[in-house]
Amino acid sequence: MIRAVFFDLDDTLIDTTELAERARRQAISNMIREGLPVSFEEAYGELMELIKEYGSNFPHHFDYLLRRLDLQYNPKWVAAGVIGYHNTKFTYLNTVRGVRKTLLKLREMGVKLGIITDGNPIKQWEKILRTDIDDYFDSVIVSDFLGVKKPHSKIFEKALSTCGVKAEESLMVGDRLYTDIYGAKQVGMTTVWFRYGRHANDDLDYLPYADFTVKEITEIPEIVRGLNSEEQLE
Amino acid sequence: MIRAVFFDLDDTLIDTTELAERARRQAISNMIREGLPVSFEEAYGELMELIKEYGSNFPHHFDYLLRRLDLQYNPKWVAAGVIGYHNTKFTYLNTVRGVRKTLLKLREMGVKLGIITDGNPIKQWEKILRTDIDDYFDSVIVSDFLGVKKPHSKIFEKALSTCGVKAEESLMVGDRLYTDIYGAKQVGMTTVWFRYGRHANDDLDYLPYADFTVKEITEIPEIVRGLNSEEQLE
Repeated sequence: MIRAVFFDLDDTLIDTTELAERARRQAISNMIREGLPVSFEEAYGELMELIKEYGSNFPHHFDYLLRRLDLQYNPKWVAAGVIGYHNTKFTYLNTVRGVRKTLLKLREMGVKLGIITDGNPIKQWEKILRTDIDDYFDSVIVSDFLGVKKPHSKIFEKALSTCGVKAEESLMVGDRLYTDIYGAKQVGMTTVWFRYGRHANDDLDYLPYADFTVKEITEIPEIVRGLNSEEQLE
Repeated sequence: MIRAVFFDLDDTLIDTTELAERARRQAISNMIREGLPVSFEEAYGELMELIKEYGSNFPHHFDYLLRRLDLQYNPKWVAAGVIGYHNTKFTYLNTVRGVRKTLLKLREMGVKLGIITDGNPIKQWEKILRTDIDDYFDSVIVSDFLGVKKPHSKIFEKALSTCGVKAEESLMVGDRLYTDIYGAKQVGMTTVWFRYGRHANDDLDYLPYADFTVKEITEIPEIVRGLNSEEQLE
């Protein structure tokens, strides 16, 4: 009997990758608009390399971009980048198609809901509050707050205990095979791989298959219904 | 002959104090909306004390507010504060009444324009770009970039040399008697005290009087015209 469904946040509930790409493009356009003397392609290419090397939460992307381009530091260009990035982020931040409908249906079915995500707790909560989805959830676990990252078991166990359910009574839905699916399988949860965003075509070979694979988040209630009715037949 | 006019940024060109107060009030309201279990008055009072003690650029206002209120750290409440603060800041950031009209008139008179401001260069440029006033200016000097703060002479001298004018050919307009007026007087500029915002009633006794005092920024072109025609009569 599935009594709780847990979701990853980025690229499962919220369209993060598409948003970040849009925001970075707008940042570069805005820097060029304010005089950055390089082509869009060059600047964007360097920015993407920089993000790959320093990580997406590095707080000095635009300063370091100027260094990489051998340009003098110019706070005007950095400010133009920050404005372009933030304006886009706040304007286009949104849930993945079908998320609200899915969450509502699951609640109507009496299922508890939770979020299990990595990342900076304030930034993750900012996404949750800005998209106004927090009322759907009984539990929100941000891994950084516990000092570990997915797929560490501690995070999944904490989420289960917060909702008062056992692993075998719960479903984990996420877009990443290692952090979400492998992590949840380890503690004994049933898993749904959401093939969405930049990880939609990840290599399956060296990773455990998920119990289910979906391309639309709206398929989740049917999976829960199926699992629960199978059990009643047994 | 006045050939250049320099302006302070915060509370001279841009309504910063009013904006910050609005943003902080909205931050507290939003935190309470998301469950912060204290009254608005208590939380706002603590926040204002905290800002007085740690400075307005301290990056952990909302985290420290929870500590002061003896509450457990909660990233949801911090995120709610950040959202309230940023949304307000981006929505209400604006120039002081009459600023655009004044800048345009001065440019039509053939006067060069500059900004001389303290503060974080990226944040100051963000204000300039978001209000779209940068095209009016020949020179923007942010003191932190030079390693000193107003009233240090270096900043004023740098501004003068960037515009290619002498001190006696220039006017400094600002809301602060010590940083703006005393600083500019030191290097020999003519000064206009803009009695506006929270410094409008500062004590004059221990500070040098400005050459002019105005309550509306729109009075500046007339002062320049007056000074320049007096000279022609001499």
